[in-house]
Amino acid sequence: MKPLFITFEGGDGAGKSLQILRFKEYLETLNHKVVLTREPGSTEVGKEIRKILVEGDKDKIDETTELLLFYADRRINLTKVILPALSEGKTVISDRYNDSTIAYQYYGSNKFNDTSLMDNLYQIVAEGKKPDITFLLDVDVKIGLERSFNKAKTEQTKELRFENVDISFHERLRNGYLEIAKKEPQRFCIIDANKTIDEVSLEIIEKFNQKIKEL
Amino acid sequence: MKPLFITFEGGDGAGKSLQILRFKEYLETLNHKVVLTREPGSTEVGKEIRKILVEGDKDKIDETTELLLFYADRRINLTKVILPALSEGKTVISDRYNDSTIAYQYYGSNKFNDTSLMDNLYQIVAEGKKPDITFLLDVDVKIGLERSFNKAKTEQTKELRFENVDISFHERLRNGYLEIAKKEPQRFCIIDANKTIDEVSLEIIEKFNQKIKEL
Repeated sequence: MKPLFITFEGGDGAGKSLQILRFKEYLETLNHKVVLTREPGSTEVGKEIRKILVEGDKDKIDETTELLLFYADRRINLTKVILPALSEGKTVISDRYNDSTIAYQYYGSNKFNDTSLMDNLYQIVAEGKKPDITFLLDVDVKIGLERSFNKAKTEQTKELRFENVDISFHERLRNGYLEIAKKEPQRFCIIDANKTIDEVSLEIIEKFNQKIKEL
Repeated sequence: MKPLFITFEGGDGAGKSLQILRFKEYLETLNHKVVLTREPGSTEVGKEIRKILVEGDKDKIDETTELLLFYADRRINLTKVILPALSEGKTVISDRYNDSTIAYQYYGSNKFNDTSLMDNLYQIVAEGKKPDITFLLDVDVKIGLERSFNKAKTEQTKELRFENVDISFHERLRNGYLEIAKKEPQRFCIIDANKTIDEVSLEIIEKFNQKIKEL
């Protein structure tokens, strides 16, 4: 199998983590060797950056610093995990990638006038490297937040920096993701993530098999 | 006194730390309120970034990641320390600033073809903000390394990521700093840091008093 670079995107509570594990199993039945990674926090250094980004006071760093750290982490994911795996013939699934930054920091946070700073940093970091396929797990904001809240309660997570924001943020985020996907239909598969876990898994596999024919 | 933004630059073992303390005392006799800061590591978050940058294996991150982290740290120093202090009428002395990145990562490391990436990131981070005065403590490479080595032995520092490199690196670094200073004579005071501590302190004060008339 030709190695693929696949990303999963979506707001909190869309069910990315579980669906990634299930999709990995499916790819393995097709003889892909699959490496899982995620942003932020792909490596030991990445995890230190993740801690800075997702824990603690919302105002401890400004939004430009935040961007620089996200892109530093992305560079680590790309140079230390994604590109080495692809060059060994392995398929990579990344839980979040560049679309997350555009969705959260541009559409969601509302603090940048345009995406030029992100585009500039993405060019520095990725030098044109893009995912082959991106699954956008699209979920109704209230359903997503409810799932995410229940998960946080169960896991007693400290990673609440992006969850502790108002509902209009999550609406902008969701619409932002859909905007991004509309601009690159050849890369994106939009998945209805309001459905049951099994139904979502099935939709991912079906859309993957369609998409793979177009690649 | 008009608040000033002052930086100290130079290779390892140039004596920056001690000279900064002494110069701070001098400025206080002129009724400056002085805030000291340093890069990397100006704040708690900055210190976490500093740890990533100066400790551990040289190859754990690539040079582009390193740049992104240095500039994230610089943004924190600027937005959380330097600009707030200046706006309160205080004078700021930063132990290292942007010239260090150009000297170490461009001239020293030899891994970039030009400074365009640094210039791009500096524009993102500083939005044109430059120091009023920069003291370059210029020291003979062998003298600097000897001082730096003795200091490391005494302090049992873990911060050896930039010290553990060959002597030609330090030659390129020193020449790089002098190149940078030559391009901006209105900002730089080059100090002969081979001399005794007292002589260096005196030269700093003398050149400061000259420079301040030109501002």
